[in-house]
Amino acid sequence: MFESLIQKQVIKNQAKMVLLVMDGLGGLAREPGGKTELESARTPNLDALASASSLGLTIPVGPGITPGSGPGHLAIFGYDPLQYEIGRGAMEALGVDFDLGPDDLAARGNFCTVDLEGNITDRRAGRLSTEISRELAELLQSIRIEEAEIFIEPVKQHRFAFVLRCPGLNDALTDSDPQTTGIPPLPIRALNPDAEKSARYVNQFICNAQEMLTGKGPANMVLLRGFARLPVMPSFKEKYALNAAAIALNGMYRGVARMVGMDVLTVHGNTIQDEFAALEANWCDYDFFYIHIKKTDTCGESGDFDGKVGAIEEVDALIPRILTLNPDVVVVGGDHSSPAVLRSHSWHPVPVLVFSPYVRPDGIADFGEVACLRGSLGPIPATHIMPIALANAQRISKYGA
Amino acid sequence: MFESLIQKQVIKNQAKMVLLVMDGLGGLAREPGGKTELESARTPNLDALASASSLGLTIPVGPGITPGSGPGHLAIFGYDPLQYEIGRGAMEALGVDFDLGPDDLAARGNFCTVDLEGNITDRRAGRLSTEISRELAELLQSIRIEEAEIFIEPVKQHRFAFVLRCPGLNDALTDSDPQTTGIPPLPIRALNPDAEKSARYVNQFICNAQEMLTGKGPANMVLLRGFARLPVMPSFKEKYALNAAAIALNGMYRGVARMVGMDVLTVHGNTIQDEFAALEANWCDYDFFYIHIKKTDTCGESGDFDGKVGAIEEVDALIPRILTLNPDVVVVGGDHSSPAVLRSHSWHPVPVLVFSPYVRPDGIADFGEVACLRGSLGPIPATHIMPIALANAQRISKYGA
Repeated sequence: MFESLIQKQVIKNQAKMVLLVMDGLGGLAREPGGKTELESARTPNLDALASASSLGLTIPVGPGITPGSGPGHLAIFGYDPLQYEIGRGAMEALGVDFDLGPDDLAARGNFCTVDLEGNITDRRAGRLSTEISRELAELLQSIRIEEAEIFIEPVKQHRFAFVLRCPGLNDALTDSDPQTTGIPPLPIRALNPDAEKSARYVNQFICNAQEMLTGKGPANMVLLRGFARLPVMPSFKEKYALNAAAIALNGMYRGVARMVGMDVLTVHGNTIQDEFAALEANWCDYDFFYIHIKKTDTCGESGDFDGKVGAIEEVDALIPRILTLNPDVVVVGGDHSSPAVLRSHSWHPVPVLVFSPYVRPDGIADFGEVACLRGSLGPIPATHIMPIALANAQRISKYGA
Repeated sequence: MFESLIQKQVIKNQAKMVLLVMDGLGGLAREPGGKTELESARTPNLDALASASSLGLTIPVGPGITPGSGPGHLAIFGYDPLQYEIGRGAMEALGVDFDLGPDDLAARGNFCTVDLEGNITDRRAGRLSTEISRELAELLQSIRIEEAEIFIEPVKQHRFAFVLRCPGLNDALTDSDPQTTGIPPLPIRALNPDAEKSARYVNQFICNAQEMLTGKGPANMVLLRGFARLPVMPSFKEKYALNAAAIALNGMYRGVARMVGMDVLTVHGNTIQDEFAALEANWCDYDFFYIHIKKTDTCGESGDFDGKVGAIEEVDALIPRILTLNPDVVVVGGDHSSPAVLRSHSWHPVPVLVFSPYVRPDGIADFGEVACLRGSLGPIPATHIMPIALANAQRISKYGA
């Protein structure tokens, strides 16, 4: 009900907003009494920005819940991640920058090895090279099933994203991957009558694929799992009346941004500096910019504490380039925590700052986990950030007389 | 569900409670690093009270939402402002202190000008004088439509509140005001079958009004918009077992208080002192008092920072008059923020204090936005204040065995 209230109250104006997401920003100290990655980083620019901002900590999904990249981003974009679930297959397709649409049914695919009886002997076909995988994918791409188009997008080694495209598909399907060896791949079954056509088409594809792959061992069969269509959700334009652009180096984040109706901008190069250049180059054409920084999460997930500190410092040095553009609202935060000591995503609340001429500044010249705890936003659901940012952009009209 | 739990658990006792609402209390600093209106005000009495109170900040409707007076008050009274919506027509009638009842259908009215073809030439009839508007309202007041009574309450200049009173009315009606000129007023249409009688009666009224106003140019026609009945809601007596009284100088706040079943007390005079005199005069007759201070909001909305500071200091000087009465619970807060720098209502959380012998005092001798941030109540939905106040009055029984 609150979500639809925001949608009803939003108005358009000239304000420009920037949402800078450092992936996996939140962290943990290496030793008792120590500092987190963000607290360890020398961040003079973020600290100065913090002193004129409202600080807080965002809870992406709920207490104790470690989010994946999909739910983490949906939350910071203001979409309830429990209401809008992005299935594994859809995430796989988004992850390789595939332009997934409303008619698409996606799944995670593996090339695998089966013996002469058709029983699986290796679910990953000896982790074949990405190059060979790419060739096989091209081969399978030629398959046509009645009116449906088929896309096979290589991911890495034995993995690929499978997409079936035609009207009337349904993702209530079982997996073909039995998650074990010694038995044949399972036939895909429809979990409700609406999914029967989808099951038939996918089984036909698997059958054709097996024929084409015969003799191509070790990769002589495919396994599919995690069938999913995109959730039906309002776009940023419908929900916030925002003309939004996304700047991200990785397909998955570009995909999630595309899913909520953002234009995905071209980044010339693959550095954080190149991302900021894309912001500058497109400044006049949009009223909302989402910038995604991957390196913080990559370092967190690989246990590289110092690398994550360095990535944060690299971003800090670029903050003046945002401020020079004179944005009306700047939000700096993360989609979830990725403490290096855990080498993974985590459930910990994520530091956030909201800067605008109309915040009540907390006067805390320090952007870090403990400092943010004293901030006026409090520990809040991540979904609250967009409404607060929009209010500060004076883009939400008064509710009731 | 929580709302109905409170209703189930409330009990009656002898405790006396005071809710002092400074309208638009929350503010913003005039300059970076400066103080808000409340922080700038010299408030020795509120500061002393704060040191023995629990402090916090209330969020009236939701993050980023700027509430009108209706939703702001419903929230601080403990009614979910998204569940109980007060339509514009109802607010207009409440605003002129009209005793709106359950059989009433209200709308906002304009006197307007139409040409000989009936096309609107001025939606506001040249903003005619309130005096002439009053005479015309009296004229239209004589119209009778079958069993329905009609009330035309002048507001200001061309504006009036329209009320149709009879059983079986429904507010699912379109506006007659097309919000443009050069075309005739639109006929009122029923949006569902239950509203057909209402549409017929209102159209009949408009027809009669046009006949009576012919030749009275520039105000020779009426426009109606925002049809609304009162939301159906439990009274303070049903919800809290409270015998409640309201003290307010402005019609709208008396109206909202009446809507939740409070007795509206007579204030002799129109100063804040006179409001406090009404509190003293009626102290023995009620167990809950709502006192509304308008001046803080008036100054905030007109951008008068110093005026708002002065209004807060004026209230501060009167705080001892409340304490002398020896109330069991005192709540001091606001319905929303109205920072002078924004010249309008805003979304910012509102400082609040809850004083009773049974709070855990935060020991913060300072009633202000930043100080309240350190308070034990935290930033909380405004609807939580009434349950907390009732608990401190020992008026909520134990839940479960």
